[in-house]
Amino acid sequence: MKKIINDPNVVVQDMLKGLVAAYPNSLKQVPNTTVIVRKDAPITGKVGLVSGGGSGHEPAHAGYVGQGMLDAAVCGEVFTSPTPDQVYEAIKAVNGGAGVFLVIKNYTGDVMNFEMATELALADGIEVEQVIVNDDVAVEDSSFTTGRRGIAGTIFVHKIAGAKAQAGGSLQEVKAIAEKVVANVRSMGMALSPCTVPAAGKPSFELAENEMEVGMGIHGEPGTERKAIATADDIATELTQKVLDDMALNRDDEVAVMVNGLGSTPEMELYIVNGKVNEILKEKGIHIHKTFVGEYMTSLEMAGCSVTLLKLDEELKELLDAESKAPAFLS
Amino acid sequence: MKKIINDPNVVVQDMLKGLVAAYPNSLKQVPNTTVIVRKDAPITGKVGLVSGGGSGHEPAHAGYVGQGMLDAAVCGEVFTSPTPDQVYEAIKAVNGGAGVFLVIKNYTGDVMNFEMATELALADGIEVEQVIVNDDVAVEDSSFTTGRRGIAGTIFVHKIAGAKAQAGGSLQEVKAIAEKVVANVRSMGMALSPCTVPAAGKPSFELAENEMEVGMGIHGEPGTERKAIATADDIATELTQKVLDDMALNRDDEVAVMVNGLGSTPEMELYIVNGKVNEILKEKGIHIHKTFVGEYMTSLEMAGCSVTLLKLDEELKELLDAESKAPAFLS
Repeated sequence: MKKIINDPNVVVQDMLKGLVAAYPNSLKQVPNTTVIVRKDAPITGKVGLVSGGGSGHEPAHAGYVGQGMLDAAVCGEVFTSPTPDQVYEAIKAVNGGAGVFLVIKNYTGDVMNFEMATELALADGIEVEQVIVNDDVAVEDSSFTTGRRGIAGTIFVHKIAGAKAQAGGSLQEVKAIAEKVVANVRSMGMALSPCTVPAAGKPSFELAENEMEVGMGIHGEPGTERKAIATADDIATELTQKVLDDMALNRDDEVAVMVNGLGSTPEMELYIVNGKVNEILKEKGIHIHKTFVGEYMTSLEMAGCSVTLLKLDEELKELLDAESKAPAFLS
Repeated sequence: MKKIINDPNVVVQDMLKGLVAAYPNSLKQVPNTTVIVRKDAPITGKVGLVSGGGSGHEPAHAGYVGQGMLDAAVCGEVFTSPTPDQVYEAIKAVNGGAGVFLVIKNYTGDVMNFEMATELALADGIEVEQVIVNDDVAVEDSSFTTGRRGIAGTIFVHKIAGAKAQAGGSLQEVKAIAEKVVANVRSMGMALSPCTVPAAGKPSFELAENEMEVGMGIHGEPGTERKAIATADDIATELTQKVLDDMALNRDDEVAVMVNGLGSTPEMELYIVNGKVNEILKEKGIHIHKTFVGEYMTSLEMAGCSVTLLKLDEELKELLDAESKAPAFLS
């Protein structure tokens, strides 16, 4: 294992220290927790937006904390759900009296722990609502999931629900728009290599020198097919087609596109994939409102990428385009 | 070689297609070249800012093209200097009558080819000035360099000279501020792994499972020492100290910090490094005005990082903080 770390057992704590040190004017850590919140939280009268999950997906989710996106991110151990008490700390830290909204990626542990935290908060009289993101079209159930997994499409939920909350939306309005994003966002990924959880010390699976896995999850969960590495165009075509097969998109519809790197794929390769995705959508007469290419939801140093499409309407476009001051999503 | 590409011989062309497809409202490609320019170039009366070099360092340099930063980036083949005629095309494309300024990383091929392009432009009556960036304190000469290499500190030159040009600075004013940045910026890097140039098909060097190389260049040029992997804190300390040894920094001085990932190092690890860099600077009473953590100047999928410090004054701070609309440096 070649990593730039101090101790595999404290990587999350060390990371959070360096993160807050980088953005001292906009982020703070709730003392004695792994919760990162906006420096100005809680904001009276504003719905508080909380997300999180296992670490190892940086910049998700702490990089998305900031004006116009999340109010808090709860950072679990690497690839491990945060505990209910940590989620509860986040809820309390961002409760400004207008309720707290949770964005949860669909993993069994996350769903369970966020829901237990909700129970604790409700007992305190804090109103809490949630959405579960399940954008990954690859598999219906997986090693860690009942139903589809939540992957890179989650970033669009953060951005759009965050903009709604920032604009003064009520808890029910934030919930409604988050559900609208979830209903309209789909993703599909593939991997060329595994990654190594620091505390494990060795890769969680192996792929041969000529192999890729299609539909691979962001923790190395098995995908749909393991096969010989294809060209970038074929990979882009397969991922995009699987996503399109699951969406009701017609000529002249508008979308946002995200080509997401899983950790060690050079940006050059992500742009090559985007070139083909763009071509496919244009051929179908689908308009691309905005494209995001980069590392948004990673899996440590896994090589690979995912393609996400979000079907837009005027409301979603306006919220997607609204200002964000989150360090990993400046706009 | 595991890469998401179509053909090793056309990766740059494919990348540029996907890049322009991602940002059609702000970038365009000069037809039949590998030059990316601002959509609104040339801008009458504004100094045109051009940088570039070999590809494989994305988002450098095409990601820094945009209002407030570069007017053009010339993209050579992977790790190969762009030819003089390509640089010349870039100069012509951004010439708005106020002269063109070139930001060149100090590699023998780049310097030679940019200077030959300057000769061509001067013959056309276009005023051209340049700065050579040599921020890497690791080695005095290297495989591809007379003098020090230009690495991640180059991004600060783009940002600050770009802001000056955007604000209406004259060619001489842009040159003066760029020279001031070069005089005040220092970097040092290290690597845990090599990278593979697509057309070569295999890594350019090897490091054993327990080895790292300190002072490694961004094309895999040898550094100063190959040794057992140290902890993140020791790595951060060594890089920061080498940089500080070469700068005249005193208590209460202000700096900008960049912790740059070389391609496959997880953002988690970069933040861990930043935590220690931050601590070292604070202990010395040096104020950190702004911190940048991420992938700014990569080396394909090399694992490793660099630390850059830029000593600031009021003028540099104001220009560093000015708005940028470049896709890879939104602020």
